[in-house]
Amino acid sequence: MNSIGSLFRVHIFGESHGQVVGITIDGCPAGIALSEDDFARDIERRKAGAAGTTPRKEEDLPQIMSGVFNGNTTGAPITILFANNNTRSTDYEALRNTPRPGHADFVLHHKFKGFNDYRGGGHSSGRLTLCLVAAGVVAKKILQGISIEATLTEAGGETNIEAAIAKAIETQDSIGGIVSCTVKGLPIGLGEPFFDSAESVISHLVFAIPAIKGIEFGAGFAATKMKGSEHNDAIADAKGTTQTNHAGGINGGITNGNELHFRIAVKPTSSTPQAQQTWNNATQQVETFTVKGRHDLCIALRVPVVAEAAAAIALADLLLISKAYL
Amino acid sequence: MNSIGSLFRVHIFGESHGQVVGITIDGCPAGIALSEDDFARDIERRKAGAAGTTPRKEEDLPQIMSGVFNGNTTGAPITILFANNNTRSTDYEALRNTPRPGHADFVLHHKFKGFNDYRGGGHSSGRLTLCLVAAGVVAKKILQGISIEATLTEAGGETNIEAAIAKAIETQDSIGGIVSCTVKGLPIGLGEPFFDSAESVISHLVFAIPAIKGIEFGAGFAATKMKGSEHNDAIADAKGTTQTNHAGGINGGITNGNELHFRIAVKPTSSTPQAQQTWNNATQQVETFTVKGRHDLCIALRVPVVAEAAAAIALADLLLISKAYL
Amino acid sequence: MNSIGSLFRVHIFGESHGQVVGITIDGCPAGIALSEDDFARDIERRKAGAAGTTPRKEEDLPQIMSGVFNGNTTGAPITILFANNNTRSTDYEALRNTPRPGHADFVLHHKFKGFNDYRGGGHSSGRLTLCLVAAGVVAKKILQGISIEATLTEAGGETNIEAAIAKAIETQDSIGGIVSCTVKGLPIGLGEPFFDSAESVISHLVFAIPAIKGIEFGAGFAATKMKGSEHNDAIADAKGTTQTNHAGGINGGITNGNELHFRIAVKPTSSTPQAQQTWNNATQQVETFTVKGRHDLCIALRVPVVAEAAAAIALADLLLISKAYL
Amino acid sequence: MNSIGSLFRVHIFGESHGQVVGITIDGCPAGIALSEDDFARDIERRKAGAAGTTPRKEEDLPQIMSGVFNGNTTGAPITILFANNNTRSTDYEALRNTPRPGHADFVLHHKFKGFNDYRGGGHSSGRLTLCLVAAGVVAKKILQGISIEATLTEAGGETNIEAAIAKAIETQDSIGGIVSCTVKGLPIGLGEPFFDSAESVISHLVFAIPAIKGIEFGAGFAATKMKGSEHNDAIADAKGTTQTNHAGGINGGITNGNELHFRIAVKPTSSTPQAQQTWNNATQQVETFTVKGRHDLCIALRVPVVAEAAAAIALADLLLISKAYL
Repeated sequence: MNSIGSLFRVHIFGESHGQVVGITIDGCPAGIALSEDDFARDIERRKAGAAGTTPRKEEDLPQIMSGVFNGNTTGAPITILFANNNTRSTDYEALRNTPRPGHADFVLHHKFKGFNDYRGGGHSSGRLTLCLVAAGVVAKKILQGISIEATLTEAGGETNIEAAIAKAIETQDSIGGIVSCTVKGLPIGLGEPFFDSAESVISHLVFAIPAIKGIEFGAGFAATKMKGSEHNDAIADAKGTTQTNHAGGINGGITNGNELHFRIAVKPTSSTPQAQQTWNNATQQVETFTVKGRHDLCIALRVPVVAEAAAAIALADLLLISKAYL
Repeated sequence: MNSIGSLFRVHIFGESHGQVVGITIDGCPAGIALSEDDFARDIERRKAGAAGTTPRKEEDLPQIMSGVFNGNTTGAPITILFANNNTRSTDYEALRNTPRPGHADFVLHHKFKGFNDYRGGGHSSGRLTLCLVAAGVVAKKILQGISIEATLTEAGGETNIEAAIAKAIETQDSIGGIVSCTVKGLPIGLGEPFFDSAESVISHLVFAIPAIKGIEFGAGFAATKMKGSEHNDAIADAKGTTQTNHAGGINGGITNGNELHFRIAVKPTSSTPQAQQTWNNATQQVETFTVKGRHDLCIALRVPVVAEAAAAIALADLLLISKAYL
Repeated sequence: MNSIGSLFRVHIFGESHGQVVGITIDGCPAGIALSEDDFARDIERRKAGAAGTTPRKEEDLPQIMSGVFNGNTTGAPITILFANNNTRSTDYEALRNTPRPGHADFVLHHKFKGFNDYRGGGHSSGRLTLCLVAAGVVAKKILQGISIEATLTEAGGETNIEAAIAKAIETQDSIGGIVSCTVKGLPIGLGEPFFDSAESVISHLVFAIPAIKGIEFGAGFAATKMKGSEHNDAIADAKGTTQTNHAGGINGGITNGNELHFRIAVKPTSSTPQAQQTWNNATQQVETFTVKGRHDLCIALRVPVVAEAAAAIALADLLLISKAYL
Repeated sequence: MNSIGSLFRVHIFGESHGQVVGITIDGCPAGIALSEDDFARDIERRKAGAAGTTPRKEEDLPQIMSGVFNGNTTGAPITILFANNNTRSTDYEALRNTPRPGHADFVLHHKFKGFNDYRGGGHSSGRLTLCLVAAGVVAKKILQGISIEATLTEAGGETNIEAAIAKAIETQDSIGGIVSCTVKGLPIGLGEPFFDSAESVISHLVFAIPAIKGIEFGAGFAATKMKGSEHNDAIADAKGTTQTNHAGGINGGITNGNELHFRIAVKPTSSTPQAQQTWNNATQQVETFTVKGRHDLCIALRVPVVAEAAAAIALADLLLISKAYL
């Protein structure tokens, strides 16, 4: 559903081409300094504008509607709105009968019996990740002394991101990428057996981000080719520091105080400029079409800050839970 | 925490060397035929005994304690117990001061302030997956017309499983593997935006399984090297059948009616017979030690049926939710 | 916390003297006709203006920000905002050191470490019930064929409401009242054993309404003076119609198809015009003071539509859950 | 559903005439001393045996199956079973076609499509309150320095309990009663706006107890006849001590540090020995019948310890949540 979290709870709403997208954050502790300015840096990082990203540009100014008083959080729910100013909905009218391959058009139409707001992906649009980023900013404030940093480490299968983007622009075909995330300064003990392992909670959030199709922690899939004697991280001191970190900072679903590492697979943007085939519900036959609208060639460029937000939201919730048991 | 699910809710309890491990399933519809015999096949698949698995053998007979009457589910919670008969706890006494690398010993001790039942991993033991398998049997009954099949497709980096196991036995070092899972017959529409995407819900369950460090849906990490025009699955008919299935049967977090595919990375068993280094809390220095107890050389051999259970539990919950909106 | 419900989930936010109060409704089925006009009648019923109610009048125009497209719900979260236009916050500055007796001032200050928005009760203000009423309007749409009607049946201990109000105005002291609610047309079977009895779920919502201090179902407290042979409702036909209805339409926590009845106790408005004593944190002594601001003399006058909303929200959730098991 | 709580989570299962009734408590902090003996006093208080209670007597010995190791809680789920030894199911066979007035027979049959375990009320039996009592024992251990005491203050409308019971035995008709509960030593600040007011959370638990039809906090329904100047509790010192306690220790849904008071209405036991009328599904007509089986004449006698448990479970959860925000 559209909320997540046990104590630090995030509720998301809005549509790509509706009036707003927004988020309500419940369970944020009182007394945290928070202003619109705090969001600027992360929102900027998510923005379109670089080569390979959509020409659609929004102001993306957060409006804090509740939960902040005299510059501090109050303990009441924090609602943040982002207006949608820059919509060109007519671009999408043509798509009603031709669900775009790789998009959610077809399943949304079916699931919501044709009542979904199909414009620009509606509630399933990547624009909603702006809300995640905003919630991430608040979550990061809770994670004092903890740093989260994600970067795009591969695009189109290349580690030279710029070259990959240039090639995508040249061939006019969209590409994917891999985002790597590192969290430093975590305490030992985050993660709640049996079902809320740190991996479970983080992956749950991460797979809410559109276009994510894989996640691995520590050595991840490469671990499947290692021997136990290689993979095990020898414990080197009383604080639990390990000599290697194949586990990615998590044992038995619980953070072990070492750096937490995960990598996520971002599929190529579905809205490629290339011609594609799909079923036309009006003509009842397969036909070739080309996606209109303004889209990213490499959505992965904009994912790192969203991945950080997903991790931050997950970890802020686990941190608050752990405090109840101190 | 130790429960999961919105309508089909699973609660897990018990310790590896305590009296029982068990599960309570809440929200199972009334009127489903269920007997102890129904569990035999999946429990057998999970059992130790094959080359590369632990010599510890349990009877693993499920005892249905509640929720079934005259051979049918009643709509009340179903509690199933498994007695722990075959425990050798003394094997573990030596480990209290030497947390095993790769295990949760260190973090559990810290998180639970030394009060955790450390014998055999306690509540974090792989033995708890027996309960997941039992819950999976019930979940599969709810998923009428839907088949879930997982197999071990790689062990120790090899697709020839037998050879890999033989090598592991020969070198006396544990290995990991990759389990691939396919779900057929799913309706269009499972998955609840924004946060409960089908990938989110399945991965949440899957990462509760000990030793899992990665998951990918459809083309997964390989998708990051594809172009949009290659990756997009062309829609071929009004039912949404796609010509390819790089999306793994999920678009926008919602099942699209095609086969659902995911692959999971199982790390090598932490309890390798090889000598390892760890911190000794008594002597306050790093020392070499060897894990005792009876363990699997390739725990991945036993994971497929557990992965099926995880997927079944996730999908049964999503299916029940979807029924509320028919 | 600030959300409630399993499938039909309501999230509330905002403060009395902040920019907005609002609500997000998640889990509403797609395809329900909904416009701002639908809220007019219930919002009007809640409004101030009658004798005995506060002179503060708000426009109270709902703004549907998301979840509705082309006049119908889309299945995505419905966010509704109400602007706060008519605030006079300076009235409250004087109260910072003198917590008002009967109000939440003292506990909110303590709980949120002084960071709560204290103006007009902030997030704990009765103004938030406007949001409940809005959610109730949506919930009632889900409850097709079911009518919910609450009325004020006692004020200040009298059944002649007008006379009681006149007396309260004359003596310039606030009064309480009893609101009675009847739900007709409910199916048999709403309520989820063991913990989510129909009474549990309704009372949970009802006690979120400020000023409510008691609830009883059917004969309620009067039942404690009856004999079993008197109290039991004889079943008169195959549909479960009962000859009497002392149970208030609920047996074993589950609706039985007869009318559901409950009554709630509304305490007298804390903000009485009479002088009162409280502790002054600045002077560190008890002192006499008089509440300023604009307040209701009989808040109970405005409670019926809120009570209907609470019942509707609870029953809509139970109805959706029950549909998952049809 | 059959679980409740955010951090301190209680899951209940079992049937009156099945093998066991039981409870799993999740989220209990590690390091609390717990043994079977701890349960003896409260279980004894709930037991049948006094005049006016059922002749059915169970051993009611708790079996702790998990979550306790070396005499302390481990932080893992605590499962406690109670065997059902003393069942006479044949008493109930006759009732299959004649739903007992005042019982859940009719609604359970309908809700669970005839698959419910109807013997002795099955999962809806008052016997399940034994599990609540057990969970209450654990909850009380978490509530250090806080005392909860409930007593039967009225039976059959009389404050002389013994005389009322004697009269019920003489007339062979069941009676109800009122249970009053006081909680001392609570900190300021328990209760989570907006929806999880202390009254909401307590009443949710209390209405899960069979036969409860009303609850009031502080002055409750009597408050509706008071003036604001009478009802308001003047604050007398910096700690928030009030001169009176009409609010029952709760303002704005949050505990204020004074004694918490509530009273609950227990209806007369449905299973009165008197002849009653009901619908016979076999003969398709109303007929007179008499309930067989062994039953309480005044179930209210056994409710106080159950009410304490309900309050303790609710407050333990709120206390743990509040600790996360300290």
